[in-house]
Amino acid sequence: MVQCDGTIARLAASPFEGLRPSGELDLVSDLRILAPVDQPRIFGLGYNYKAHSNEVGKPVPDLPVLFMKPGTAVIGPDESIVYPSDGEIIHFEGELCVVMGKVARHVPEVQALDYVLGYTCGNDVSDRVLQRRESAFGCLFAGKGYDTFAPLGPAIVTGLDPSNLQIITRLNGEVRQNGNTRDLLFPVPYLIAYLSRFVTLLPGDVIMTGTPAGVGPIQVGDTIEVEIPAIGVLRNSVVAEALPRDRRD
Amino acid sequence: MVQCDGTIARLAASPFEGLRPSGELDLVSDLRILAPVDQPRIFGLGYNYKAHSNEVGKPVPDLPVLFMKPGTAVIGPDESIVYPSDGEIIHFEGELCVVMGKVARHVPEVQALDYVLGYTCGNDVSDRVLQRRESAFGCLFAGKGYDTFAPLGPAIVTGLDPSNLQIITRLNGEVRQNGNTRDLLFPVPYLIAYLSRFVTLLPGDVIMTGTPAGVGPIQVGDTIEVEIPAIGVLRNSVVAEALPRDRRD
Repeated sequence: MVQCDGTIARLAASPFEGLRPSGELDLVSDLRILAPVDQPRIFGLGYNYKAHSNEVGKPVPDLPVLFMKPGTAVIGPDESIVYPSDGEIIHFEGELCVVMGKVARHVPEVQALDYVLGYTCGNDVSDRVLQRRESAFGCLFAGKGYDTFAPLGPAIVTGLDPSNLQIITRLNGEVRQNGNTRDLLFPVPYLIAYLSRFVTLLPGDVIMTGTPAGVGPIQVGDTIEVEIPAIGVLRNSVVAEALPRDRRD
Repeated sequence: MVQCDGTIARLAASPFEGLRPSGELDLVSDLRILAPVDQPRIFGLGYNYKAHSNEVGKPVPDLPVLFMKPGTAVIGPDESIVYPSDGEIIHFEGELCVVMGKVARHVPEVQALDYVLGYTCGNDVSDRVLQRRESAFGCLFAGKGYDTFAPLGPAIVTGLDPSNLQIITRLNGEVRQNGNTRDLLFPVPYLIAYLSRFVTLLPGDVIMTGTPAGVGPIQVGDTIEVEIPAIGVLRNSVVAEALPRDRRD
């Protein structure tokens, strides 16, 4: 648990078992902050802000447009997004992410937030060329699933109201996305209720709720920051892929 | 390890650490066989047999059409597929499934099978109404992801050649699919090499390689068998969903 004096209070057990401090403190400045969940299941949303659907020329969907990102895509704050050696158009997508706290199945919308542990920032990095090729066949995986394409962090913040959170994405310091979760087409309680109609949601599951307008390409050397002021700043830079020697052309 | 005399030899450790028998034997008839992997990551394939693409009127894809099924969808042999209370058109899809044995990243096609633990039967149960609605927006999740929509089993068989395996699906005893993995558009070694270009594959990951022609609807009360003669028969029946009391209409 991060505290206002720059210390972190260690928990006595997993955060899914309650947020009881153990009494031990560490200085934030002494630590490397990892991704807040270890290789979670990630449920991603497409076209969940009308302004983003408009900018990419897509109709506004009449149901949540869901896909999964593999847990191996997760990196933490200050870790590097690896630009694929054959990547052509790779986009950032700043998003609010929900971290589930309890097993949830057939949860009514009005109770959905009781099943949430907290919220974090996320970047749903996407290979647009692959995404378009896959989506033409009605599926989506590789374009969203590369290792390092799911930065999460810097922390899970509890007790937030997910219906009014500002999301700002900066590329090399310049604001490129400035949205608010009040514009979510399918808001957080609806998403949890909807997902739980199909799937038993588990503690640690992450829902990446979709990106507002303003997405754009990243290049090797860039720094991308996803900021939700109530949560913090998720900062990642972009590096070139180092292929194993026998796989180089 | 199942043996020809009807016994099962317990392993000394996880199968991912080697297939060393512990010396203890059990009778198969005394046991309940569970799914061969516990809540794995599942990478599914769409339209990976030309004859299936033809029967559903889809073009033959020029890249592997991938999606993920959540691990919570997995059930084992003789467990029941739950027909959703609002389901309309639910289809069976018999498939060969690959179980990964080692961490794999940027694996060349010629070495890909070295990373496989073995093979099992799978049924990629699909809600066609939801699938079509989602796919129209270029994504796929709920239509494939319901709890119980990924029967796997009855066992992981090692040492098979995945390029020539017959797949037979029977609905209430009647043969409905009779395909062979020699007709896979993207064969197993290609799929592993392709996936590993994006994702670090982990031991226990499952690749459901796609379904041959002959898919069709299931109803409550049906029994579906997916048989790969070199592996065995995966048998599951279909039951109606029992909704929690407060969720009934």
